[in-house]
Amino acid sequence: MSKQYWLGVDGGGTHCRVRLYDEQQQVVGEAVSGSGNLRLGVDQVFAHIITASLQVVRSAGLPDDTLAQVSVGMGMAGACQPQQQAEVAAYSHPFRAVSLLTDAHTACLGAFCGQPGAILILGTGSCGLYFDGQHFHSIGGWGFPISDGGSGAMLGLRLIQQSLLAFDGMQPVTELSQRLLEQLGGHPVDAVAWMDQARPRDYAALAPLVWQAYEAGDALADSLVTQHLDDVRLLLRRLQQLGAGRCALMGGLAARTSAHLSAEFGHFLVDPQQDALYGAMLLARDGVELQGGLCT
Amino acid sequence: MSKQYWLGVDGGGTHCRVRLYDEQQQVVGEAVSGSGNLRLGVDQVFAHIITASLQVVRSAGLPDDTLAQVSVGMGMAGACQPQQQAEVAAYSHPFRAVSLLTDAHTACLGAFCGQPGAILILGTGSCGLYFDGQHFHSIGGWGFPISDGGSGAMLGLRLIQQSLLAFDGMQPVTELSQRLLEQLGGHPVDAVAWMDQARPRDYAALAPLVWQAYEAGDALADSLVTQHLDDVRLLLRRLQQLGAGRCALMGGLAARTSAHLSAEFGHFLVDPQQDALYGAMLLARDGVELQGGLCT
Repeated sequence: MSKQYWLGVDGGGTHCRVRLYDEQQQVVGEAVSGSGNLRLGVDQVFAHIITASLQVVRSAGLPDDTLAQVSVGMGMAGACQPQQQAEVAAYSHPFRAVSLLTDAHTACLGAFCGQPGAILILGTGSCGLYFDGQHFHSIGGWGFPISDGGSGAMLGLRLIQQSLLAFDGMQPVTELSQRLLEQLGGHPVDAVAWMDQARPRDYAALAPLVWQAYEAGDALADSLVTQHLDDVRLLLRRLQQLGAGRCALMGGLAARTSAHLSAEFGHFLVDPQQDALYGAMLLARDGVELQGGLCT
Repeated sequence: MSKQYWLGVDGGGTHCRVRLYDEQQQVVGEAVSGSGNLRLGVDQVFAHIITASLQVVRSAGLPDDTLAQVSVGMGMAGACQPQQQAEVAAYSHPFRAVSLLTDAHTACLGAFCGQPGAILILGTGSCGLYFDGQHFHSIGGWGFPISDGGSGAMLGLRLIQQSLLAFDGMQPVTELSQRLLEQLGGHPVDAVAWMDQARPRDYAALAPLVWQAYEAGDALADSLVTQHLDDVRLLLRRLQQLGAGRCALMGGLAARTSAHLSAEFGHFLVDPQQDALYGAMLLARDGVELQGGLCT
């Protein structure tokens, strides 16, 4: 019987990363190709994954038809539509097998090497995911602004809201509220124009202003951080309630948020053990069942 | 010297209403034409106003060139850009004179017959406006979601946020939270798809659910109404602080909100005396200066 390989895929909007593992779980190689956004169509995404896989296989001195011995685990951003799942399952690809989950699922598998545990992603958006050893349980992550408390986008939105109230004399003006208005152009009219074009990541890009001002003792920053931590507590408590015994915080806000909550949550907050590519390899190797909503 | 007339215009997204007054402030006639949204271009808006004006003039048995004796006061939704103001001022029209403010300004003038007083608009959006007898002072109204606390859109957004938290086990499930999810399609995935298309008025269209559930004693509705009233209090207190001695609530949420705050604000909350068309006529007749931001 020929040798088996496992390929972990981490597919984001800008690129697809792949990492090939052999039977001893040793890394054969890694490569990066174009966008892994399934909304662009399953053909294009598979083309990128195949291009990157062939690059790894050839670099390792293996023949191209090695792909037929490769089981693929895909963790793809936005792979939340049943239709996308069906398209990937039905696709005629050169691999031995393909399994698909979102990048949050593979990040969770990687964080605890396939053992039970939860992750809480605090980036542009937010979402919590708990793997109990057999099934996934997800909370939040429905998108900004109807969801995603604890995210950078929500922190940025509240910063703008409070700064406009300050401009209009309904909240005290602070260094931070003035700094925010300057950043958006100097006047609320500029903020209106900014909003017309703004995407969640643009709101999230304002979050660092809050942390900087917090360090400087700004009263508005203090109230925004307090509210942010309350949102994160709600998510962490729910993950505990679902049965999680440990949780890894991830995303751009993880480090600062974790520093504020580590005393309160003690050993519950841990560092991830491996990355999402490793988790995707585990998905390819072991498979996991999916419970609840697909969108996480 | 020929007789003078004054034309009040109330220009909204769907249509322009005009009302012609004579020197004795008697109504000569009224008419409605197409959209008064200045974003469609000043040519189109003037075409609609001229069409409606000619209709009124002819119905009254007056010759078409009566328009040269008509001074126009325009209260136009979205007339907040300096560029739009300049275009209207420079436009070659058949009228004696034209003055432009937003429909909020003319509503405020109408509400107190040109005397000092404030209005607070609680519709899809929200904004407060105080006329001190010479100048306008505006607060809020920068748009959803960066502003417009107390509005229907904000009430709708918070309803969705809290209902999704309930779905995920982070808030208690109530009749209202279940009703909201059903309304959006039955599952948070439907809410995500809804959000991708939703405009502020779609959020505001959810507000009546809150009031209905409030009557039925729903706990979520109770907390949402409490938060809504806090937002409105902030606006009313600021209007008082700016010097307003009375305030008329307007817009779809005015009646219910007013009922909750009338005891607390006593004689400060009053009914409007006249409408925005009357206010636009006063603008044409007396003119007013504009202070602060144009966007209200």
